[in-house]
Amino acid sequence: MGNAVLLATRAEAMSEWAEALRALDPSLEIRCFPDVGDPAGIEAAVVWTEHDMAELRRYPNLKLIVSMGAGVDHLLRPPGPPPGVPVARLVDARLTQGMTEWVLLNVLRFHRQDPEYRAQQAARIWRELPAPDAAARRIGILGLGALGTAAARALSGLGFPVTGWSRRPKAIAGIECRHGADGLAAMLPRTAILVCLLPLTPATRGLINADLLRALPRGAYVINGARGGHVVDADLLRALDEGHIAGAALDVFEPEPLPPDHPYWSHPRVFITPHAASITIPRSAAPQVVENIHRARAGRPLLNLVDLAAGY
Amino acid sequence: MGNAVLLATRAEAMSEWAEALRALDPSLEIRCFPDVGDPAGIEAAVVWTEHDMAELRRYPNLKLIVSMGAGVDHLLRPPGPPPGVPVARLVDARLTQGMTEWVLLNVLRFHRQDPEYRAQQAARIWRELPAPDAAARRIGILGLGALGTAAARALSGLGFPVTGWSRRPKAIAGIECRHGADGLAAMLPRTAILVCLLPLTPATRGLINADLLRALPRGAYVINGARGGHVVDADLLRALDEGHIAGAALDVFEPEPLPPDHPYWSHPRVFITPHAASITIPRSAAPQVVENIHRARAGRPLLNLVDLAAGY
Repeated sequence: MGNAVLLATRAEAMSEWAEALRALDPSLEIRCFPDVGDPAGIEAAVVWTEHDMAELRRYPNLKLIVSMGAGVDHLLRPPGPPPGVPVARLVDARLTQGMTEWVLLNVLRFHRQDPEYRAQQAARIWRELPAPDAAARRIGILGLGALGTAAARALSGLGFPVTGWSRRPKAIAGIECRHGADGLAAMLPRTAILVCLLPLTPATRGLINADLLRALPRGAYVINGARGGHVVDADLLRALDEGHIAGAALDVFEPEPLPPDHPYWSHPRVFITPHAASITIPRSAAPQVVENIHRARAGRPLLNLVDLAAGY
Repeated sequence: MGNAVLLATRAEAMSEWAEALRALDPSLEIRCFPDVGDPAGIEAAVVWTEHDMAELRRYPNLKLIVSMGAGVDHLLRPPGPPPGVPVARLVDARLTQGMTEWVLLNVLRFHRQDPEYRAQQAARIWRELPAPDAAARRIGILGLGALGTAAARALSGLGFPVTGWSRRPKAIAGIECRHGADGLAAMLPRTAILVCLLPLTPATRGLINADLLRALPRGAYVINGARGGHVVDADLLRALDEGHIAGAALDVFEPEPLPPDHPYWSHPRVFITPHAASITIPRSAAPQVVENIHRARAGRPLLNLVDLAAGY
């Protein structure tokens, strides 16, 4: 039987993870890819997007796969994880905090006309723009998981009316919750700023397309902190160029890194961050990973288990 | 005896104010400067910065002066208001909301390395910067009036540790409160982002000078939403150019509008808004003005009365 933990991500991050895991459980044997050693010795694999799922099928005693982020779409792409091995993701306060900050920054950037004020400064123009009213600017949040719920609460706390949308019905105090196709259709025309924090699944891929963008009011903004695959780039660029969408803040792309010749880079109404909205901090995330390793050994239910059929 | 209300500000704003006041008390006689009519008929003056205080001395029956903003420094400059006439300022939810949003936008701009990410985008550079930790970034707020307290609470709610500083001792749950010269000296070296929301008085004019900036840690940021007179511009520019201060967000200047040749306009680490952080909305602020007119008539204590000796 294996009892080693395999880490697979960038080298610096692996040493941070190793240190954080060992600090919590010094008995853990930790291996860093590609130094796999005896494949039969590997009990748990803690991996990030770059990792090849086919590799994990070589480990006969693998009991647990942990994504190093909140999303797991990268693990579920063909060939997917080895059959019968459970996959867990991270639900972590630092990840949630980072995403909430990034969403707030971009909501406030658009709400407070910051692109216009930056342009005015460059032209040395002193001109007060119409005062925005948060109470009249409804935020629509796609996805009410840990990240969407935290963003919804923070925005609501700042005085923005918030509608959240999810696949299944949810109830969150102070947030108008909608679900399903009808809920989305009802929400979009009232949404001044759309924030995507959905998991990427076959059902959500390409959701932010020409049809959805057209259903938003003219002058709406789009913020995507989820996955590049949620957005049909050509449709978003067309809506921006037509002025129907007034601006976009994008942290995620397909592919990443965003290719140097992509039109997003130089678009005056697109604000890019390099998949940096919410960064996993091993020290913050390690406790749930160690707990899940102990649970997997004991055959107990895992934390933050992924529903492989639903894709999140 | 007078019973008219004189409005004095820009023409469009006067018609908004007139409408908002009349909606609350249709019996009010409202005059818009310069159509003063009989000076003896004026009972209350609701004025903004441009107004000449000498003019108000011509009104023998003036019972009340109301500033159209949170600050009153412009009313207290020589010759000051007519002796014996009380001055009230606005404490208004929309004003407070606007300032809180503006402060949060700028704190998050600096905290989330947005200037660096904008520069990277312009150069098509995909590079993740070190993940910031709000819990390790202490915000220092100068001034714990209505605006400072609201900003402190909002920032604390987002996970930032906050120290607030005021002239007199205060206690606010969740906020470390300091006061006096010793309190300021103790606070500055621990402050990563300094936010000024003080009233401008002889005691606070020029407070943000070379000495204060040197007491901040290297790489600190300065955000001023109060009055231009709080900052010694030459000192701030020198600290920015030396790299001791990493960035500044400024909404207020002396004089305003900021002259077209001022070095702030083109400084790559200065973010300018044209005194637009917090804009008075007459409909939101009118109820306290009408209430104060009624109180002044009845000889009852006024709301948001200014202490002329303290200057706020």
